[in-house]
Amino acid sequence: MSHNQWTARIQDASDRLDGIVDNTPLIYSSHFSHDTGNAVYFKTENFQKTGAFKLRGAYNRMAQIADDERGTGVVTASAGNHAQGVALAASILGIQATVVMPVATPLIKINATKSYGATVILHGDTYDDAYQHALSYQAATGTTFIHPFDDLEVISGQGTIGKEIIEALPELDILLVPVGGGGLVSGIATYVKTINPTCKVYGVEPEGALSMKRSIEMGKVTRLETVSTVADGVAVKQVGNLTLELARDYVDGIITVSDYDIMDAFLMLIEKHKMVVENAGALSVAALKKLDVKDKIIVSVLSGGNIDVVTVSAMINKGLARRGRIFCFSVDLPDTPGQLLNISQVLADLKANVIKLDHNQFMNFDRFSHVQLQVTVETNGHEHIKAIVDTLKTAGYEVKQVY
Amino acid sequence: MSHNQWTARIQDASDRLDGIVDNTPLIYSSHFSHDTGNAVYFKTENFQKTGAFKLRGAYNRMAQIADDERGTGVVTASAGNHAQGVALAASILGIQATVVMPVATPLIKINATKSYGATVILHGDTYDDAYQHALSYQAATGTTFIHPFDDLEVISGQGTIGKEIIEALPELDILLVPVGGGGLVSGIATYVKTINPTCKVYGVEPEGALSMKRSIEMGKVTRLETVSTVADGVAVKQVGNLTLELARDYVDGIITVSDYDIMDAFLMLIEKHKMVVENAGALSVAALKKLDVKDKIIVSVLSGGNIDVVTVSAMINKGLARRGRIFCFSVDLPDTPGQLLNISQVLADLKANVIKLDHNQFMNFDRFSHVQLQVTVETNGHEHIKAIVDTLKTAGYEVKQVY
Repeated sequence: MSHNQWTARIQDASDRLDGIVDNTPLIYSSHFSHDTGNAVYFKTENFQKTGAFKLRGAYNRMAQIADDERGTGVVTASAGNHAQGVALAASILGIQATVVMPVATPLIKINATKSYGATVILHGDTYDDAYQHALSYQAATGTTFIHPFDDLEVISGQGTIGKEIIEALPELDILLVPVGGGGLVSGIATYVKTINPTCKVYGVEPEGALSMKRSIEMGKVTRLETVSTVADGVAVKQVGNLTLELARDYVDGIITVSDYDIMDAFLMLIEKHKMVVENAGALSVAALKKLDVKDKIIVSVLSGGNIDVVTVSAMINKGLARRGRIFCFSVDLPDTPGQLLNISQVLADLKANVIKLDHNQFMNFDRFSHVQLQVTVETNGHEHIKAIVDTLKTAGYEVKQVY
Repeated sequence: MSHNQWTARIQDASDRLDGIVDNTPLIYSSHFSHDTGNAVYFKTENFQKTGAFKLRGAYNRMAQIADDERGTGVVTASAGNHAQGVALAASILGIQATVVMPVATPLIKINATKSYGATVILHGDTYDDAYQHALSYQAATGTTFIHPFDDLEVISGQGTIGKEIIEALPELDILLVPVGGGGLVSGIATYVKTINPTCKVYGVEPEGALSMKRSIEMGKVTRLETVSTVADGVAVKQVGNLTLELARDYVDGIITVSDYDIMDAFLMLIEKHKMVVENAGALSVAALKKLDVKDKIIVSVLSGGNIDVVTVSAMINKGLARRGRIFCFSVDLPDTPGQLLNISQVLADLKANVIKLDHNQFMNFDRFSHVQLQVTVETNGHEHIKAIVDTLKTAGYEVKQVY
């Protein structure tokens, strides 16, 4: 397809989505601008209806189902944002949607999908099982299968985000986009690079799920054996044929970030912007510190905000340990009175607030007549932790960091 | 002061604050609108510079310090948002600010205040101690004291929020405003009730800190002996003379909410709006379900978003227990093999995921040869919990709910 055909297609998608999706706010970030020496903006698709960008592609695809085919409904496989996008689009269009989800899908995601009126089928242990079942269901019923990313109209729907960004910030230098299956990045890149070829568009992948990076390197769609990342929204083993082709033609490169980078970005978004994103949505913020540029206009696409509050809490706790705000250590003590007092004195002197204590006579097998004490304290950073460890060592205790 | 004088004064404040503070977004809430049968909007002062509305009052007050008095600087006492408001306002105006904070103030708040260039003095165990020290400091140095709420110009600064709301939504029916010392609610109410007398303006206080409600009932400023609430931003023992007078004249009533109400509102804002507020900032959302109205246009003022992520995590965990998403129970077991297996079988059958287990031989003092098992499981709501309890009881176990 020519450049012009792509922009026309995304323009059409934009017209179709008018009044259906929100043109989400583009928010200037003083914190990240100051921190990186650039002008950083966030495209806040976490504030989009259903909490993520997926509604755009799903609606754009489904609005083009011919009238005489609508009666048989649509089917898809997803345990995440695509499920809700398809479900809400179906409800708006008056189409019946069936979503196949793996059996172990959290109830909260099942209910969110059902709340938009979709029928949920629980099948299989993995996403792949659910996907295969959705394909069988499609073959058996003649309904329309809505692919989460490898579909021209789904990609065009996601591309409308690029249009909204470039209209608000025509002088944009760099665009950072999370990559899972590649629908979002390829849609945005085709539009933005056509309108403004000097703008750099980078995909961002977590180190544990480099499906697009690997496929670009191999020159063909290459399936990852396993994926492992906190960003479950982009934990995709295999990108699409179409998304790979477009990414190769239009995306300037893939930036990789670690789970720790994602955790840091997630916490900063809460602390500095009072905003919650899902882990996948934080990828493009994590990527900011990987750029070696100054005085550029940069947009990070926050792709979604659907995160279980249990996960929010877990991310915060891990993030605090990483920042040196929580310190958990174990120390072997002779099994004699007064030892706990000594340790407590050191911690009190150094103003480390104890939040958890396990004193276990059975845990130490190496040395008889010793007990193991495991202590979790609130700390003020890595220097504070070092002071605690040093003081305990000077007092003759052997300290092991647990986390 | 006459109605007209008030509106003129707030108009002046608004001019002064132009370009200094953000006219924060007024966000429509589909969730709370649908939930309550009204049109609910949020005035998002959690997105304000410094993360809270306090900058408005502080700047409006400090911008009016005469040129020849600016050299001696300003002083205030605060462990919260007012500290940061004064610090940033001082930095913008080129005035030196000194902030007295209680000794136990979290490092994160001290650093936030220092980051705006203020000098921080740590003094005393309580806010009252710090406040007295700030007054002494003022008397000794001749600097200007900036009161957090009981000051005409501080109140007028906060009132600009009312102006922004009524300009965006002139047909507003009900306005819900958190109340601590009363500066925010009195500033907003004087403006809004003057422009639109049919609009109801309610203050919202937590059950554990009813300083304004009590003072209105008593007909004079009445000091609470103690305050106890999760909403530390409004844990104020004594409202102001001026704020009480204005609240009596302009505020239609005080709505009270419990810590649980606040917790629910806090979680819903994360889940449905991907937004983080501080607990005090959630008061006006918690108050929505206390209103017995339909088809009204309602604005809840989200007063701030400065919450430590440790507190976010704690709020989430308490909120989950409250919703029946986490269940912690203890059960006494005969000290014989196979007991843990029985319990595990029940939990597995009922799909309750175990997240914490304490098996303690020493904890049960009542009956010899018994151990106490304490189990924390993830659950799907109160019915699920009831099923677990019933099944364990039928199997002969005595279950005690811990939380």
